[in-house]
Amino acid sequence: MRDRLRPCIAAMAGYAPGEQPREGDILKLNTNESPYPPSPRVFDAVRTALTGDRLRKYPESLGSSFRRSAGQVLGVDPDGIVIGNGSDDILTILTRAFVPEKGLVVSPTPSYLLYRSLAEIQGARFQAVPFAADWSLPEPWPVPDADILFLSNPNSPSGTVVPTSAVSRLATQIRGPLIADEAYADFAGESALALAQERGANVIVTRSLSKSYCLAGIRFGFAVTSPEIASELVKVKDSYNCDVLSLAAARAALEDQDYLRQTCAKIIATRARLERGLAALGFAVTPSRANFVWCRRSDRAVKPLYEELKRRKILIRYMTFAGYGDGLRISVGSDAEIDRLLGELRGMV
Amino acid sequence: MRDRLRPCIAAMAGYAPGEQPREGDILKLNTNESPYPPSPRVFDAVRTALTGDRLRKYPESLGSSFRRSAGQVLGVDPDGIVIGNGSDDILTILTRAFVPEKGLVVSPTPSYLLYRSLAEIQGARFQAVPFAADWSLPEPWPVPDADILFLSNPNSPSGTVVPTSAVSRLATQIRGPLIADEAYADFAGESALALAQERGANVIVTRSLSKSYCLAGIRFGFAVTSPEIASELVKVKDSYNCDVLSLAAARAALEDQDYLRQTCAKIIATRARLERGLAALGFAVTPSRANFVWCRRSDRAVKPLYEELKRRKILIRYMTFAGYGDGLRISVGSDAEIDRLLGELRGMV
Repeated sequence: MRDRLRPCIAAMAGYAPGEQPREGDILKLNTNESPYPPSPRVFDAVRTALTGDRLRKYPESLGSSFRRSAGQVLGVDPDGIVIGNGSDDILTILTRAFVPEKGLVVSPTPSYLLYRSLAEIQGARFQAVPFAADWSLPEPWPVPDADILFLSNPNSPSGTVVPTSAVSRLATQIRGPLIADEAYADFAGESALALAQERGANVIVTRSLSKSYCLAGIRFGFAVTSPEIASELVKVKDSYNCDVLSLAAARAALEDQDYLRQTCAKIIATRARLERGLAALGFAVTPSRANFVWCRRSDRAVKPLYEELKRRKILIRYMTFAGYGDGLRISVGSDAEIDRLLGELRGMV
Repeated sequence: MRDRLRPCIAAMAGYAPGEQPREGDILKLNTNESPYPPSPRVFDAVRTALTGDRLRKYPESLGSSFRRSAGQVLGVDPDGIVIGNGSDDILTILTRAFVPEKGLVVSPTPSYLLYRSLAEIQGARFQAVPFAADWSLPEPWPVPDADILFLSNPNSPSGTVVPTSAVSRLATQIRGPLIADEAYADFAGESALALAQERGANVIVTRSLSKSYCLAGIRFGFAVTSPEIASELVKVKDSYNCDVLSLAAARAALEDQDYLRQTCAKIIATRARLERGLAALGFAVTPSRANFVWCRRSDRAVKPLYEELKRRKILIRYMTFAGYGDGLRISVGSDAEIDRLLGELRGMV
């Protein structure tokens, strides 16, 4: 039956997510999870959702309660919010809405590898445009006619930010919509939300609750666009793509902005500690505005460092990009976790 | 920006799920939810999953714990199981894996309306093949060259079953895979699981936990196929399409087969009561093997009955199909709920 598959599916390798070991006392600094638990309100909200008859009934199709809350918290029109089963679900919906078979997906590189996989699943072409050495975008943008442009901002793996002014200029130079994938925006304090709110602007913002809201386990993300485009994206999503427990958790998390600010402040402080520690050990560190740090070195190979850390039960991410080279992406854990990592590295370099 | 959408998306109407009112004392007999709560083990499993650090970490990408359990319970190879965020997610994954743009999706009619929407989102054509008057399939099957064939079995809205022998014959007459959508199979006691296990057989079974396992709120479904095809479908699904709470709930529900049997037995007994009651009121009732009953009448319009019931806070499903006509699909509730429905109908017909 394999010969009945679409050729684009049979030919593709498939996106490989970071390792998710279940057992043992492994220190996970590889998938940008938060070292902190979600807001206590999240646990209360999930326990409340377990009462009554909510598990046996379908959830809200559009997540109206969440949208009302998110609209208020973010200052955006609730009708322009589309809920997703993680922001990957949103990126999939956007690809299916805008990119035809044989269409073109474009993204700067090095960046989130999923964008290429999304193009491949859709049977579309993918083109990567290299960032400049300082992680700025080439101006003018060299591929104006793609069906969609994905911009991870802050970018993974670099942790760098393209300023909103440059995002705004880029949006005027392209035909398809610009997707500002803002999974890490809460750590950067910079966002294209205002651009996405402008009617007619071809900017759509996507957000995730996996990172700054410490909720990777419940899968929740959303898009912010105009109500008109939101109603089109809803046609593409599964009717009930978010479940009752996730919806309750997501709303509770978003409504606790104090907790978000406290958690982000701790991450940002530890991020500086990690950057200083890595620089002191001779790494070339890219100043980060996300919850991870990208570092490289020219004096020695870094893959053996990743492998040795793994043997010592510390997982970080070794990444390599065509035309660019390799490096290590290290998630910001707690102070104690980062001190342990730096201690181990100290004996290796 | 609307003009940047793929034409197939802009042109489609979008699947309209059944109404999901949140407030008031509405009796919901419209979306085939269970009148019973899920197994008590489900609540324990979710509460346990709230402890430790599971919410902040990503879930298992492939749902290995669930697959091991499901393999054991169903007697199938765990490596041939693909987890889904509801069986709609699985149907989407299958469509994307097998159906190219301008491809062909085929399904008997009247049946689940989502199949057409899945074709439209993919930019593919959809062809409906009428069931015979007795809800059997035409033999030989008249459209052998579709890219995928969806067979809702038991079928919605009829509640009827195509016997496994006929499913097996159908599978030999078509080019693409036959998807046996068995969302309601636990109420029928008939399944194509054995067919799906045969290597090389082009039959893939999909299951849902929304109906017989009383878990519409948590969104969980799965596919059973060969390990080879499963590994291809995994390329198409989002990396983390099921969250930690859903995975825990789904596993606990599936492991409580005693509870499943008890719940299904109650539903089947009440289904007979509903069928008898409707027949006594002059409805033409299709004998059901699902958790709903399809009924029609030739002496009067049924849409006003649906509307009047809605005014009286009882929701059922009024459905109409091109080339076939209309009818009422009524979910099997508890005995008390069905008695209330029948009491209201008695005063109307």
